[in-house]
Amino acid sequence: MPDTIPADSVGIVTPATLHFDEPLQLECGRTLAEYDIVYETYGALNANASNAVLICHALSGHHHAAGYHSANDKRPGWWDNCIGPGKPIDTNRFFVVSLNNIGGCHGSTGPGSINPATSQPWGPDFPMVTVKDWVNSQAKLADRLGIEKWAAVIGGSLGGMQALQWAIDYPDRLSHAAVIASAPKLSAQNIAFNEVARQSIITDPNFHGGRYYLHDTYPRQGLILARMVGHITYLSEDAMRAKFGRDLQSGRFHFGFDVEFQVESYLRHQGETFSRNFDANTYLLMTKALDYFDPAREFDNSFELALAQTKCRFLVVSFTTDWRFAPQRSEEIVNGLVTVGRDVSYAEIDTDKGHDGFLIDIPEYLKLFSAYMHRVAVEIEGEAPNAAS
Amino acid sequence: MPDTIPADSVGIVTPATLHFDEPLQLECGRTLAEYDIVYETYGALNANASNAVLICHALSGHHHAAGYHSANDKRPGWWDNCIGPGKPIDTNRFFVVSLNNIGGCHGSTGPGSINPATSQPWGPDFPMVTVKDWVNSQAKLADRLGIEKWAAVIGGSLGGMQALQWAIDYPDRLSHAAVIASAPKLSAQNIAFNEVARQSIITDPNFHGGRYYLHDTYPRQGLILARMVGHITYLSEDAMRAKFGRDLQSGRFHFGFDVEFQVESYLRHQGETFSRNFDANTYLLMTKALDYFDPAREFDNSFELALAQTKCRFLVVSFTTDWRFAPQRSEEIVNGLVTVGRDVSYAEIDTDKGHDGFLIDIPEYLKLFSAYMHRVAVEIEGEAPNAAS
Repeated sequence: MPDTIPADSVGIVTPATLHFDEPLQLECGRTLAEYDIVYETYGALNANASNAVLICHALSGHHHAAGYHSANDKRPGWWDNCIGPGKPIDTNRFFVVSLNNIGGCHGSTGPGSINPATSQPWGPDFPMVTVKDWVNSQAKLADRLGIEKWAAVIGGSLGGMQALQWAIDYPDRLSHAAVIASAPKLSAQNIAFNEVARQSIITDPNFHGGRYYLHDTYPRQGLILARMVGHITYLSEDAMRAKFGRDLQSGRFHFGFDVEFQVESYLRHQGETFSRNFDANTYLLMTKALDYFDPAREFDNSFELALAQTKCRFLVVSFTTDWRFAPQRSEEIVNGLVTVGRDVSYAEIDTDKGHDGFLIDIPEYLKLFSAYMHRVAVEIEGEAPNAAS
Repeated sequence: MPDTIPADSVGIVTPATLHFDEPLQLECGRTLAEYDIVYETYGALNANASNAVLICHALSGHHHAAGYHSANDKRPGWWDNCIGPGKPIDTNRFFVVSLNNIGGCHGSTGPGSINPATSQPWGPDFPMVTVKDWVNSQAKLADRLGIEKWAAVIGGSLGGMQALQWAIDYPDRLSHAAVIASAPKLSAQNIAFNEVARQSIITDPNFHGGRYYLHDTYPRQGLILARMVGHITYLSEDAMRAKFGRDLQSGRFHFGFDVEFQVESYLRHQGETFSRNFDANTYLLMTKALDYFDPAREFDNSFELALAQTKCRFLVVSFTTDWRFAPQRSEEIVNGLVTVGRDVSYAEIDTDKGHDGFLIDIPEYLKLFSAYMHRVAVEIEGEAPNAAS
């Protein structure tokens, strides 16, 4: 392993792709005849395949959750602080599977993929996918990997919604669900912010009705704006104040429309970087999946009835300054689970990091996450003492 | 007065315009050689001109604060619930002056006006105007109207900032300042939202660098997006939940990008209506005036030193669910005023209406506003019992 790669990293990892040619029936009524799923794995599957953990990604996430793609890779996967040897999701004990969801733009079949029916990119013809559809596709991935039951399904934000949906739809196929910085469904305000992001993209003249691939362009400005709005909701007001306050970019007022305050420069930079690395149609699909998520809907709008389907144990985590999915939204999940008699551990982490907290090294958070996952590992190792290292 | 006009209205009003040909020195270093200010007045000025009240407008406001422009006018001025006979700002007692600020788009000189130097619309060449500049121009208006001292200067949001700046810059020219739903300066998050709005407008291809007037077009989409973002920050999460929840536009999911939830339809409608009635360059200027407002800056960044300049008495009002300028921001003003020994009445109004609360009929708010203004009127009437009706 090269010198530059830290000792507690999973090291250099290589994505794998599985092709599925059995049609996937989607919630919208349409069918995906065939599709690819790209994924990475970290750690080793034990003999009875009982130590597998599934990582579900959030809006802008993907399969590359930990480790490096090459010795020269500047940055590790998006959840490298939580996945690796000795880390909360300890790859000395767990076999970790992390995938890119369908509809994504990092290798799994999505709007940028070729539609076999037309030999053109799917673009706006790609079917609307939901959290439930993702969970179904993840179950097919589990089948192919020989994983009958996950030790845990884990996710933050939109990823947490997938963990929750797993617990409801496949109660016998997971022992634990970790639902971090998430919510039982979006609020009107959450939907409103998503709609602004969508309108930014859709009304960009370079969007071309979603067929920008054919015009050798992409809705750069729309994506920048969408991300700028999103980014404000990921940070707490406290974090923004601590990070920028009203600090000026150059120390004095210029009375013009160039960047004046550092927060403006930061947001523009975030938006621009994102726009170069993310597909606009995928962004649209992901925001709609968020909007549509509402597991209670299938159960006469009773969230408790939905939760009554679950059999696993739960870890629920929220962050005090998260105003996108505030602690109260996690408490709705916890209260529902307690009402239906489930075993749930809940922690509200005191931090100024806002919604992004779930991705950040917050000692209290990593400590309790480690402690919970340690218990999960001990259970498995108790069942099959000779199997896990 | 026509039947359709309520008895407690100021009735049919007609705007007036004053031309100023003495140059106005601006904070940005530039000078406005000449300018018009459009304004309305309600009620009668008493003999010693002691009952005049100035209304300062917020981001999207203008001079038409009360009454109707014709018998067929569908809606009254923007603060009609607070200005009129028997209302908090009682036109039986006060002479009310309401103007459109320079840089505006409702009749006062602004980016859509003709620049005498070029005989073309000013567009992006219009100088950056600040809260301080507005207050200076309002002082010139007061001079022309023969008002040496305002009984009160009153405003909500950005209007409250003007009231505060009046108290600092012209301490001998007002007896009271009412600073409602305002803040001592913007937070990084406030600036961030403004920057998203500006980028929406500036990157709209129909913006043409601000010279869209010459292209017979305007940045409609940019304005829509800017207003959508703004509107989310004006409403509380509670108000949005109460108004829309997750109610569907048609009762079922369509799994497409047309409007699905009522909140989306509402936001798009708000944005579209606004875009037809507001000038994009003015929107840019107003958001910058908000960003730049920071009266402490002139006083070694000491807000207290700034407030120590004031001599008037203060009414400060905040709204519990206002997350744009939260009650804590008003408390910063109150605490500063108390520290420097000023007389300040503070009320935090319990409401789910968010920042928009200052425009809304909230009984507790109107009652205390009336009570405060009654005391102001009694003072004046005590001084000149024969002058006020």
